[in-house]
Amino acid sequence: MKLQQALSERDGAELANLLDPLPLSDALRELLNLPVEQRSVALSLLPPELAAELVEEAPNALAVDLVERMGSEQAAEVIEELDSDVQADVIGELEDADAEAILTRMDPEDAADVRRLVEYEDDVAGGLMVAEAFTFSETDTVGRVLRRFANEEYDLERYRGQHPYVLNSNGTPIGVVSLRSLVSTRRSARLTDIMVPPITVQANMPLEKLEDLFDENPFLGLPVVEADGHLVGVVSRSAVDEALLKRAESSSLKRQGVFGDELRSMPLPLRARRRLQWLSANIVLNVIAASVIAAYEQTLAAVIALAVFLPMVSDMSGCSGNQAVAVSMRELSLGLARPIDAMRVWFKEVSVGVINGFVLGLLIGVVAWMWKGNPFLGLVIGGALGLNTIIAVSIGGVLPLLLKRIGQDPAVASGPLLTTITDMAGFFLVLSLATAMMPLLI
Amino acid sequence: MKLQQALSERDGAELANLLDPLPLSDALRELLNLPVEQRSVALSLLPPELAAELVEEAPNALAVDLVERMGSEQAAEVIEELDSDVQADVIGELEDADAEAILTRMDPEDAADVRRLVEYEDDVAGGLMVAEAFTFSETDTVGRVLRRFANEEYDLERYRGQHPYVLNSNGTPIGVVSLRSLVSTRRSARLTDIMVPPITVQANMPLEKLEDLFDENPFLGLPVVEADGHLVGVVSRSAVDEALLKRAESSSLKRQGVFGDELRSMPLPLRARRRLQWLSANIVLNVIAASVIAAYEQTLAAVIALAVFLPMVSDMSGCSGNQAVAVSMRELSLGLARPIDAMRVWFKEVSVGVINGFVLGLLIGVVAWMWKGNPFLGLVIGGALGLNTIIAVSIGGVLPLLLKRIGQDPAVASGPLLTTITDMAGFFLVLSLATAMMPLLI
Repeated sequence: MKLQQALSERDGAELANLLDPLPLSDALRELLNLPVEQRSVALSLLPPELAAELVEEAPNALAVDLVERMGSEQAAEVIEELDSDVQADVIGELEDADAEAILTRMDPEDAADVRRLVEYEDDVAGGLMVAEAFTFSETDTVGRVLRRFANEEYDLERYRGQHPYVLNSNGTPIGVVSLRSLVSTRRSARLTDIMVPPITVQANMPLEKLEDLFDENPFLGLPVVEADGHLVGVVSRSAVDEALLKRAESSSLKRQGVFGDELRSMPLPLRARRRLQWLSANIVLNVIAASVIAAYEQTLAAVIALAVFLPMVSDMSGCSGNQAVAVSMRELSLGLARPIDAMRVWFKEVSVGVINGFVLGLLIGVVAWMWKGNPFLGLVIGGALGLNTIIAVSIGGVLPLLLKRIGQDPAVASGPLLTTITDMAGFFLVLSLATAMMPLLI
Repeated sequence: MKLQQALSERDGAELANLLDPLPLSDALRELLNLPVEQRSVALSLLPPELAAELVEEAPNALAVDLVERMGSEQAAEVIEELDSDVQADVIGELEDADAEAILTRMDPEDAADVRRLVEYEDDVAGGLMVAEAFTFSETDTVGRVLRRFANEEYDLERYRGQHPYVLNSNGTPIGVVSLRSLVSTRRSARLTDIMVPPITVQANMPLEKLEDLFDENPFLGLPVVEADGHLVGVVSRSAVDEALLKRAESSSLKRQGVFGDELRSMPLPLRARRRLQWLSANIVLNVIAASVIAAYEQTLAAVIALAVFLPMVSDMSGCSGNQAVAVSMRELSLGLARPIDAMRVWFKEVSVGVINGFVLGLLIGVVAWMWKGNPFLGLVIGGALGLNTIIAVSIGGVLPLLLKRIGQDPAVASGPLLTTITDMAGFFLVLSLATAMMPLLI
């Protein structure tokens, strides 16, 4: 390919020519198609602005990997081009020594901002904010704001729609000035005469609270303060939206047992190991569930047809339960269900469970009857699936709320726990009903 | 509860007092806890602005249901308070007669905007834009823009950071004016002297393309034009972000067989029916897979222990395959994998499959050997799971890309297809290997 040729010739200009016209996601895909050690070589050859755009486009774990493999000199140049919230995300994930090497090569003021930002958790206002704020003092005038606009110090886009914030001598925001009052007031007027009190958020405000605030208010950005009231940054609507999207995607991956935001461009041993961790825990749960079958081998030996239906009952119940899990996960993320709503959720689910259990039990019962020509086998299989559907949706609906309540991540644990319980219950129902009705089945 | 009391007394002011101080998601949850027919009564009693905030907070299907049950007079009042893109989303989903009744009661200009917007698909620029744009003509001056700022006609937040767009006599955007040049130019200057050429997007530009554009550029909004070039609205960064989040959540629900963005506040018959549709299709697939077991009943009857391991092999392979599906879905949504990358994806997956298949096969093989005291049983079960893991990750990785290529939604079909194939393959591998090694197993 042309890309590899430009790379082998160390031709940064040609690399830029090839990648720059592409949409970012396409350019990143091209980069990721290179062998892993060459990706960072390519990044170092590119103009720092373009390299920074690619790093920003990459999911976090990948961005960190790309930066880690660059020389600290080039890495510092690329990182200087990022927004301060992204700088902190990347540097916060590096090895301490790597981070230090890069920080000492950065502009000291920017480096200080990053050191401040990495202290915050990712999913609170402090971790989502940028350090740069458009601030003025109590003595500043309208004219001074307009001059800063005009002097290219402020740029609506770069500041994601920040308004001018007025700080007192302690650095606490005491007012915010609207664009409208700026352009309709004489230049010599003090900002303190036209400002309105600001809505501020605490640096430890969690993502969900920020989501609520931005849903209720049209603001494009909100000033972030520490407990003592001084301004530490500004969190933008778009940073919150992006964090919500990332969380939704990562939760969807975790539900399927994929951790660490795997991409196929990551090293094979890492991908295999991460997936295996979850799978091997799952094997243990499977052995537990299967032990129920082992306890009924005599029944199975007598009515071998049961073995045909065991995986069906287990799979169908798992599906019904996972539907309920999915609805609960969504209601949790929308704030429409809270851990204390477990009883209400259970009641809503059990109603669905009774209807669907009846229908599915009837369907599979008729299938079993017709297939094996024994109505009692239909009764056993249909009855077991019907009851187990009710169990599955009850557990599926309530489990995510309970896990959340005890501080566990429902995306991780709901699925495996659910299927283990419904497998055990399903096997038990089929085999114990069959044991009880044995004379009618053979 | 207080809410129900205020409702039974038809006390709108008290209702507003109870709901207004709550975060919107909490207020919506309170509303949804009311019986379904009372929710819209409550909305009608609330001040239209608050009712509109609640409708906007509600997921789309629910918002439509709430509006549908209100009188068209009150519904029109509430809808007038929404942004035009949300107006179109709600009205577009109503029955034609209901929509007409509401539209005729709205301000004619707003109604005309909505009629225009509902014509666009939800996930293209036209469906995501607002109709209101901050526009000027070629003869307008800087002073005129500043006067409109000052006259409260423009509000940075309401317009989500729109810049002034200059239209020619055909209504085509020919320039955009930065805030910086506005405040640093004399008031009598023509906008045409300071404008720069605008980046416009076509009304049919899909969501992914818009995502790329906003990733590459810092704009807060982009003007949307029809094929003939005239401006029809403005799409904001936050509208794109919200649409991406909705799509991620809805795709996560669909993967688990939940359609129509179910919430537990929806009517029971609807919820049960929607879930059943998917489950009953799944039963058919399960019967197909189980027929493989039925074909080997003699083998099973001879080695009843196999029945213990069949569900384990099927479940573990399904899990491995679903991990691969999840990674593919994510890479599709990030633009890092395209349908034509199927071979590359397969190669990346099969490497993981060989490693994980070996480890899992070994694990379960040892378990089977120890449990039943027969090393050959371990060989059969372990070998089957090992091979089936490779099959499962291959199919799981590639299937979403193939479905996308033939225009199917990979979120819907990947899971059921995957598990059916891996179940069949798993059952076949276990039972045919066992049949071949029969003398060693009994």
